[in-house]
Amino acid sequence: MNFVTFRTASDLTPRLGAVVNESVVTLPSDMISLCAKGAAGFAAAAEMAAAAPAEDRHPLTAVELLPVVPRPGKIICLGLNYADHAAEGGNSKPEYPSLFMRGPSSLTAHGAPLRRPRASTQLDFEAELAVVIGTTCRHLTPANALQAVAGYSCFNDGTLRDYQRKTAQWTIGKNFDETGSFGPWLVPASTLPAGAAGLKIESRLNGTVMQSSNTAHMLFPVEETLCLITEAITLDPGDVIIMGTPAGVGYARRPPVWMKASDTIEVEIEGIGILSNRIEDEA
Amino acid sequence: MNFVTFRTASDLTPRLGAVVNESVVTLPSDMISLCAKGAAGFAAAAEMAAAAPAEDRHPLTAVELLPVVPRPGKIICLGLNYADHAAEGGNSKPEYPSLFMRGPSSLTAHGAPLRRPRASTQLDFEAELAVVIGTTCRHLTPANALQAVAGYSCFNDGTLRDYQRKTAQWTIGKNFDETGSFGPWLVPASTLPAGAAGLKIESRLNGTVMQSSNTAHMLFPVEETLCLITEAITLDPGDVIIMGTPAGVGYARRPPVWMKASDTIEVEIEGIGILSNRIEDEA
Repeated sequence: MNFVTFRTASDLTPRLGAVVNESVVTLPSDMISLCAKGAAGFAAAAEMAAAAPAEDRHPLTAVELLPVVPRPGKIICLGLNYADHAAEGGNSKPEYPSLFMRGPSSLTAHGAPLRRPRASTQLDFEAELAVVIGTTCRHLTPANALQAVAGYSCFNDGTLRDYQRKTAQWTIGKNFDETGSFGPWLVPASTLPAGAAGLKIESRLNGTVMQSSNTAHMLFPVEETLCLITEAITLDPGDVIIMGTPAGVGYARRPPVWMKASDTIEVEIEGIGILSNRIEDEA
Repeated sequence: MNFVTFRTASDLTPRLGAVVNESVVTLPSDMISLCAKGAAGFAAAAEMAAAAPAEDRHPLTAVELLPVVPRPGKIICLGLNYADHAAEGGNSKPEYPSLFMRGPSSLTAHGAPLRRPRASTQLDFEAELAVVIGTTCRHLTPANALQAVAGYSCFNDGTLRDYQRKTAQWTIGKNFDETGSFGPWLVPASTLPAGAAGLKIESRLNGTVMQSSNTAHMLFPVEETLCLITEAITLDPGDVIIMGTPAGVGYARRPPVWMKASDTIEVEIEGIGILSNRIEDEA
């Protein structure tokens, strides 16, 4: 069973939901608390969802999905984590991951607009695997790293390329409002291969495949990434790690492909789902 | 009147406090809510603090100060924002600020340990001005940018230099647990010069002056920085902007100076106060 953060027209408070068939069942608590409870929490939530009365069920198409975790404490992103994408930008295989952060104001959700700002037309897509943390952890080891993961989702690390390259620090180009799409739902780690490895990952712009790879090709897989990050940083429940993107992004094409109003961009990861957004210009 | 986030041995919940003489007066609410209320909120808090009964007062030396904002939604930092510091690292004057982010797990407070991790001995200090946001804002202009500021504090942007330079992205070297010291208190913007400009800023390691400059020398002053950031990003109450450091940091000295256990590092900004930390090794 997969889990969403959502709201409805009649209740604007963000709620935790379980996806049952084509319905969302309202659950108590919130996504971060659910993630912190681990496998037992997912099992209890699934049981509660199955027993929920009809008035707690909403058609999936009738709710507004929100970012899977609307306000993570930390969103830590990897750059250049697929050899083919590093190569298309003229970068060699790195010895350490390039890490940067996004803030929660940069997030948007499945079905919500992905925003092209006034300031730039160079809006690019990046299909990525999102890892959601379930335990407070530091100094993870290969033996225990994956136990810290609550689940996985899709992420579109929308980037303003000209702002990304204004200085050597990519952060500003990765933090425009509503450019990082996160969803549609959280898939508990127990229902996917260890480290979400070996999953097909794809992006499609207006139906045309732009990126097509496999999470098996990540230079720093989830387990190793978690060990490296927690050498420095305590991760907490609800923190999110964004695992980098494969080749095929817009800026590396000749001519470059930029997303514009009314385009539809999809990120699909095998076993997780499809994250779809329409581009809208900032007002 | 200045404001702190603190806790006591008998009440571990983080509380908002007003500093009155050498006491801390407990107030309802929390720092982010206070910042969001603007000048009227500071005035009401000051009035409440003045009228507080004796049992709500704690000697300043008896409370544990916490980071001024313990869990900001965003902590956005500027690099190379003083010409002399850019030059000491071989960098020319930038046309756009170098921006990166810290997460809340990297914060520590006045009087709390500043942590040297197991992973590195290259722990360096950086005296900086911290700007705390009071309103939700986007597309600020020179005419209104400073109205978005609730107040100012001191920050020590503690950095592991080898990790900062593992790749072109500085983020990991700026995010080790308990390396970014934030305090001692929030000084309302109304009690300082506009944009906290023209204030002496200094760091001292074991009493020896290491950095001594003036906020007037920032390449991107507060007003311009807020305009540039909000071209891309919505800022929210409690978000923090860290304004970069002047020359004199440890790595640029010959031989380099690294902080080690039992060292005392102080950051002082005129009109704000002294932020002091003792270095402790990670267990």
